[in-house]
Amino acid sequence: MSLISKLSEQFGRFPGIGPRQSRRFVQFLLMQNQSYLDDLSDSIAKLKGEVSLCSSCFRFFVTNGSHEHELCNVCSDTNRDHGILMVVEKDIDCENIERSRAYNGLYFILGGTVPILEKRANGIREKELKSTVTERGEKKELKEVIIAFSLNPDGEHTGDHVVKLLSPLKEKYGFTTTLFGRGLSTGSELEYSDSETIKNAFTTRR
Amino acid sequence: MSLISKLSEQFGRFPGIGPRQSRRFVQFLLMQNQSYLDDLSDSIAKLKGEVSLCSSCFRFFVTNGSHEHELCNVCSDTNRDHGILMVVEKDIDCENIERSRAYNGLYFILGGTVPILEKRANGIREKELKSTVTERGEKKELKEVIIAFSLNPDGEHTGDHVVKLLSPLKEKYGFTTTLFGRGLSTGSELEYSDSETIKNAFTTRR
Amino acid sequence: MSLISKLSEQFGRFPGIGPRQSRRFVQFLLMQNQSYLDDLSDSIAKLKGEVSLCSSCFRFFVTNGSHEHELCNVCSDTNRDHGILMVVEKDIDCENIERSRAYNGLYFILGGTVPILEKRANGIREKELKSTVTERGEKKELKEVIIAFSLNPDGEHTGDHVVKLLSPLKEKYGFTTTLFGRGLSTGSELEYSDSETIKNAFTTRR
Amino acid sequence: MSLISKLSEQFGRFPGIGPRQSRRFVQFLLMQNQSYLDDLSDSIAKLKGEVSLCSSCFRFFVTNGSHEHELCNVCSDTNRDHGILMVVEKDIDCENIERSRAYNGLYFILGGTVPILEKRANGIREKELKSTVTERGEKKELKEVIIAFSLNPDGEHTGDHVVKLLSPLKEKYGFTTTLFGRGLSTGSELEYSDSETIKNAFTTRR
Repeated sequence: MSLISKLSEQFGRFPGIGPRQSRRFVQFLLMQNQSYLDDLSDSIAKLKGEVSLCSSCFRFFVTNGSHEHELCNVCSDTNRDHGILMVVEKDIDCENIERSRAYNGLYFILGGTVPILEKRANGIREKELKSTVTERGEKKELKEVIIAFSLNPDGEHTGDHVVKLLSPLKEKYGFTTTLFGRGLSTGSELEYSDSETIKNAFTTRR
Repeated sequence: MSLISKLSEQFGRFPGIGPRQSRRFVQFLLMQNQSYLDDLSDSIAKLKGEVSLCSSCFRFFVTNGSHEHELCNVCSDTNRDHGILMVVEKDIDCENIERSRAYNGLYFILGGTVPILEKRANGIREKELKSTVTERGEKKELKEVIIAFSLNPDGEHTGDHVVKLLSPLKEKYGFTTTLFGRGLSTGSELEYSDSETIKNAFTTRR
Repeated sequence: MSLISKLSEQFGRFPGIGPRQSRRFVQFLLMQNQSYLDDLSDSIAKLKGEVSLCSSCFRFFVTNGSHEHELCNVCSDTNRDHGILMVVEKDIDCENIERSRAYNGLYFILGGTVPILEKRANGIREKELKSTVTERGEKKELKEVIIAFSLNPDGEHTGDHVVKLLSPLKEKYGFTTTLFGRGLSTGSELEYSDSETIKNAFTTRR
Repeated sequence: MSLISKLSEQFGRFPGIGPRQSRRFVQFLLMQNQSYLDDLSDSIAKLKGEVSLCSSCFRFFVTNGSHEHELCNVCSDTNRDHGILMVVEKDIDCENIERSRAYNGLYFILGGTVPILEKRANGIREKELKSTVTERGEKKELKEVIIAFSLNPDGEHTGDHVVKLLSPLKEKYGFTTTLFGRGLSTGSELEYSDSETIKNAFTTRR
């Protein structure tokens, strides 16, 4: 197989990229000079070497080559509230929440959702979540675990799953579990809102 | 002007209808038989005669010809909680909230919004709102006024306006004013939510 | 049934209008004054009385009350080329072609298409087309019949059907049948064009 | 700058990719194993080494390492008609035309368009086009040059420009220049077609 075809296929696995756009990517690269390609190639090859998975929250973070410290910049920041842990699905959710500047506690990246049609959770960090929560609980510093998933069937199912998973630890260590609030979100129009959103907006009026 | 052009122009004033679709409406009518047209014509001419504006909430309601009673079916329903009043922009918002079966109190149709760039409120029922609230207040039956507008700049501006408007009456009659709750709405994804929605979802977690 | 519901249902039959928009139409009418409703009601009731179907091309046209003349303004216009007849599906196609000012012949409105899955043509003006063509043929004034349907499966199928239908008359009266040309249309991009369009654009290059 | 940010920025230059999607690409790569990244990195670094620019049509083609032959598989195919040359904007247009199997001649990739607001052509292969045409003309094998650009203002402007550019050679070597045909394209509906398309479809009826 030619490199043109192979590269098309490789880009075709990127999230949201179909065969047509992956061919456009290859054409785009063919038009660039070699130094750009070398640079890009280099970034990709070295990406994982300069990045670590935080041993506490499981976010990817930049280590600058040295792998001594295992904690990311958020988990090792003593100005943040170590008494609150927010469980999210993926790194990008966490980035977006940071951007809002609403939250000053710590995170835990679950690494996926529990789809509504599956009984068992696959490939998500259940054991790791329990051990992070246990560790914090033993230090008597954990006050609250916030469950922050998207408001769709898989997200709600995953929320229920995490609540159940943490239920024994919650009693043992005395923290609360909360769910992200529901109601009208930016742009919600009353004329077009679904009944669930209206119920939530009514129940959480303040 | 021919009736074809005139009718095109009349349909062109309908909400969301451009010149192309209004011409399609006319073509559609030309293809129907005369009895359908007579029927439609009749419904339009008699529409307002069989409908009244409720003197308390200002919703349109069907009177079946007799104009004796001035109150709509919601306002005259003794099974509903007359201690709560929900202020909405328009009839269709009210219909949608009824569909959710979340609410059992009364309504008040403001009849519009106060656009964010305007200082003065035009064409909305300010006087009527104050008089309905005063009347309920005098009867000592009003516990809460819920402000329920869309979550966009005009809706938020109108909410602020109504809160200020009711502020003297609130003190006098001892009711509370609440706003529809904010947070994640059905379909909200954390990755794509704006900062305002994330802040709200965090603040109203429960 | 209340007039609100009835009128909602009547508007719901309009082309492209769903239940939500038909309710908005009713709300819109409720907010207008009675003279607007009377005017609209009047236009609808009288529409067909002031409009006739041209006995030659079957377009709707305005008669201004008098039903003496049976021919529309196009068919009775001696400055137009009576030797060319363009067969189209519906009145609006004809209006759009007139707007382009590309054509100076006459029209024939077929009144529908022959869907690709149906063997028989239903509700289209086959007999009327043959009789209009025969009449023109007898006068020895017909040089060309242009088949102008949309370029989609139903349109192509209808084109084939009309060509076959006219085939005996074509031999008898010596006119030609042509199809609207195919190739790139405004906005066609070569990168995204389908193979059929590219083939046509290649074959009809000039 | 971290590699995560750098790579985000590099992907952000890909056609059609905004900052959000480029971050998703980086997250996606972080989740893959190192061998996938090495493979991708390798393909990108070697891409241009295994690909040449055809010296006649200026398409990119796979050389399999040996750079001996300068002609691509189309230009060196003796079964194709060397008497016709189709001038297109870019490689992907050419791929799409090949897919239609409508054309059996040769190509010339102009490498861009002449935007309608610019007097001068920048960065397109004018000199190369003239020299390819001259070479073919001298061999007395050139019968036709087909101008095949998208049907939008820039494409039409570029077509005019190429026609003028080739005009002296056309007289000298006796070939014709043709433009891709215009009319209805797949999906064109007569009700919604613009006047230009209707004019073209009428003029090119057959």
